[in-house]
Amino acid sequence: MTAFRFADTMLARLDELGRISESPDFLLRTFLTPEQKQAHEKVAGWMREAGMTVHHDAAGNVVGRYEGSQADAPVLMLGSHLDTVRNAGKYDGMLGVIAPIACVADLDRRGKRLDHAIEVVGFVNEEGTRFGAPMTGSRAIAGTFDPAMLETKDRNGVSMGEAYRAFGLDPAKIGSCARRKGSVAAFMELHIEQGPVLENEGLALGVVTAISGARRHRVEITGLAGHAGTVPMGQRQDALVAAAEIVTFIERRCTGTPTLVGTVGMMEALPGAMNVIPGMTRFSIDIRAGDDATRDAAIADVLREIEAVCARRNLTFTVTELYNSTATPCHPALMDAVEAAIRAQGLPTMRLPSGAGHDAATLAPLCPIGMMFMRCTRGISHNPLEAVLPEDVEVATAALLHFIENFRAPVQ
Amino acid sequence: MTAFRFADTMLARLDELGRISESPDFLLRTFLTPEQKQAHEKVAGWMREAGMTVHHDAAGNVVGRYEGSQADAPVLMLGSHLDTVRNAGKYDGMLGVIAPIACVADLDRRGKRLDHAIEVVGFVNEEGTRFGAPMTGSRAIAGTFDPAMLETKDRNGVSMGEAYRAFGLDPAKIGSCARRKGSVAAFMELHIEQGPVLENEGLALGVVTAISGARRHRVEITGLAGHAGTVPMGQRQDALVAAAEIVTFIERRCTGTPTLVGTVGMMEALPGAMNVIPGMTRFSIDIRAGDDATRDAAIADVLREIEAVCARRNLTFTVTELYNSTATPCHPALMDAVEAAIRAQGLPTMRLPSGAGHDAATLAPLCPIGMMFMRCTRGISHNPLEAVLPEDVEVATAALLHFIENFRAPVQ
Repeated sequence: MTAFRFADTMLARLDELGRISESPDFLLRTFLTPEQKQAHEKVAGWMREAGMTVHHDAAGNVVGRYEGSQADAPVLMLGSHLDTVRNAGKYDGMLGVIAPIACVADLDRRGKRLDHAIEVVGFVNEEGTRFGAPMTGSRAIAGTFDPAMLETKDRNGVSMGEAYRAFGLDPAKIGSCARRKGSVAAFMELHIEQGPVLENEGLALGVVTAISGARRHRVEITGLAGHAGTVPMGQRQDALVAAAEIVTFIERRCTGTPTLVGTVGMMEALPGAMNVIPGMTRFSIDIRAGDDATRDAAIADVLREIEAVCARRNLTFTVTELYNSTATPCHPALMDAVEAAIRAQGLPTMRLPSGAGHDAATLAPLCPIGMMFMRCTRGISHNPLEAVLPEDVEVATAALLHFIENFRAPVQ
Repeated sequence: MTAFRFADTMLARLDELGRISESPDFLLRTFLTPEQKQAHEKVAGWMREAGMTVHHDAAGNVVGRYEGSQADAPVLMLGSHLDTVRNAGKYDGMLGVIAPIACVADLDRRGKRLDHAIEVVGFVNEEGTRFGAPMTGSRAIAGTFDPAMLETKDRNGVSMGEAYRAFGLDPAKIGSCARRKGSVAAFMELHIEQGPVLENEGLALGVVTAISGARRHRVEITGLAGHAGTVPMGQRQDALVAAAEIVTFIERRCTGTPTLVGTVGMMEALPGAMNVIPGMTRFSIDIRAGDDATRDAAIADVLREIEAVCARRNLTFTVTELYNSTATPCHPALMDAVEAAIRAQGLPTMRLPSGAGHDAATLAPLCPIGMMFMRCTRGISHNPLEAVLPEDVEVATAALLHFIENFRAPVQ
C-alpha cells in the first residue's frame, strides 16, 4: 500500500461523514437536522486543525477562514455542500469541502500565507432533499436567498422557517450572510463528475466549462381510455403510444449535439390496467446544454413534436414549465488555471460542461467561478455505489493546492 | 315519445339494477355480497313474472326456466352476468339477462311454448372484481370450476370459500351445477360491444364470430439509472427509451391485421425522478386476435423486437407470461341464425370478433355458443359513461326473440 500525502486522511474523513445519517440503512443527511449539526461540527474541527478560524453563518453554512497577509484583499473561496440526497453516496459535495481543508492544512504546516485570505465553505442544503428548494446555503452567501423559500415545507408539514428556529437560528438574519460584491475574488469547487465522461476518456480530472442550464417541463396528454380487446387499432386515442413517440423523438433530437442531453425520467400511464388503453399519460422532460441557445432550440423542437403527434393522433395535451435555469459559464482565466494545475500533476485533461447544478453556479452573480471535476466509478452518483479511486483523490487535491498557491484574481 | 314494445320496461329495469351498489357514489356490485343477493332477487321476480320457475344454484347463479313441450329436449340457454367492475356502467352484462327475460315474457303472454325449455341465467362473478378469479359462475355450469379458486382472497383477506359460507352457500356443492354434455343445445349471449366498431359502421347490431384469445406478458427492462444532466446521450442505458421503442413497435405490428389488437396499459419508469435517467421499466403487453395463430405471430415478433432493442441498447430484460386464453369461435350455424334474426328486423349487420372475454367463451366446452353485439355510445364501457340507445335495445330484443323462436339446435 502506498501512503498518500492527502488521500488517506481525506478518505477516512469522507467515511466518517458518510456514517452521519438520519437512517441506519443508507446515507441521508438533510437540512437543519441534528445530523447536519453533527457533520458541521466535525468539519469545523478539521478546519480548526488546519489553522482556520470557523464560524457558522446565519444560513447554517460552516465557514473556515485562513487569513492572508493583506487583511482587505478579496478572498479566494472554495467549498461544496455537506447535505445529501436520500440513499446517497459519500463523495458528492463532501469531497469539495474536505479537499480544500487538506490544502489549507498543508499550507499551514508549511507556515505559508497568501496575500489574500482563503475561505472554505461547507454549504447547507444544496440538494433540496428536505424542502424541495435547493441551493439555499450558497444563495444566502450570493445574496440571492428568497425569503419565500422559508415557506416551503417538508413531508411532515414543517416549514423551512420553523425548522430554522427549531435548529436555533433566526431566519430573519439570513440576509446578513450575503457577501459584498468585490469581496470575493473567485469561487472554486471540486466535485465528482457524476457522469461517465472522464472515466470513458481515461482521465482523472477535467476542467468544467459551464454549468448547464436545465429546463424541465411536465407534459400531460389526454386521449380516450378504452377496452384493450374491443377497440381496433385504427380507432384508438392511446395516450401512451403518443408519449412513447415523444420519448424516442427526444432521444433522437438530443443525440449528436455536444453537451445537449434530454431525459424523460417520470412516466405515468392512466388508468394503468393491463387490459385498458391508456387514456392519459403524464411525463417529465429535462433538457440541458452547455449553452442556453442549444438547449432552447431542442426544447422548441420537442414542443413542436408534441403538438404534431397529438394533432395526428387526435389527442389533447398541456405542457407546464417547472424549472428554468440559464447556463453559467466558468471564468476563462479560472479554466486556464485549473487546466494548468492539472497539467502540473503530469496529467492530461479535457474540458467538459457540468450537466448537474452546483453551488458554484449559484455564486456566479457574486464572483468569477471555476470548477474541477474528478472521475467517479462508472459515473454513478446519488447512489450508495458512488465510488472514487484513492489516486484520483490524491491528484485532485494536489491540483487544487497548485491552483490555490498560483491563484491570481481574475479580471471581473 | 314512442312507446317501445320492449325497451321502456327493460331500460327501467336496467336503471333499477344500476342503483343496487356497494357504493353510494358509483356502481359496484361484486360477488357474494348483500347487493348480489338483492339484484338476484329482483331478477328472480322478473323471471317469475315472465312465467319461469327460478332457482339459485350452488355457485350463486340465478336460473329461470321456461318449460318446453318436450321435457327431455336439450335446453336453449341464454344469459349474461349480473356483477360489475368498480365504477361500472349499467348495461355490461345486465342487458344480456334482462333481454331474454323480456323475450320469454313475450312468449308467455302469447302462450307460446317451444319444443325445448329455455333457460335464462344471471351469472355471478364474470368480472372477477372481488377475488381476481373471473367467470366462476359460468365455469360452474360448464363443469370447469377449479376449487383452487376458492382460495383466492379479496382485499380484506376473505377467501372466496369463506365468502360462500358467509353468504349461506356450501362451496363443496359447486360441482353439482355442472350441466351434462348434450343437455344444453346452445348458449346465446347478447352483450354491448364495449368497443366503437358498430357505432363507426352505423350499425345497431353485429354477429360475433369469436371471442378473441388474449395473452398478457409483463416485461421488465433493466438499464442503468444515471444523472439526467451528466451522462451524455451516447453513454446511456435508458430503460424507458427502450420501452418507448417497444410500445411504438407493438402499435405498428398490430395495425393493419384484422381483429389483431395490442395494448400496453401499464408503464412504470424507475426510480421515477425528473432528473434521473430511468434504470428500469416495467410494462404490460396485452395482445389479442380472433384466431390464435394471428395473435401468436404478433407476440413472437414483439418478443424478437424486445430482444433486439435491448441488445442494441445494452440492456437486460425479462418477459413473464401472465395469462393465455385461446380464441373461442362461435358456432357457424348460430352466427347464421343471429345474422338472420338481425336482418329480419330490416337491419344491415356485420360480423366482428369480441376482443373482450365473456361467459359465452367459458361455456364453449359444454355446448355450441353464439353472441350478438349491440352498439354502445362511443364504445365506452367499464365506465359510468356507458350508454345505449333505446331503439337499439328494442331491435336487439326483437332480434333475440326472432332467434329464440326460430332456434334449431346446431349439430355439435
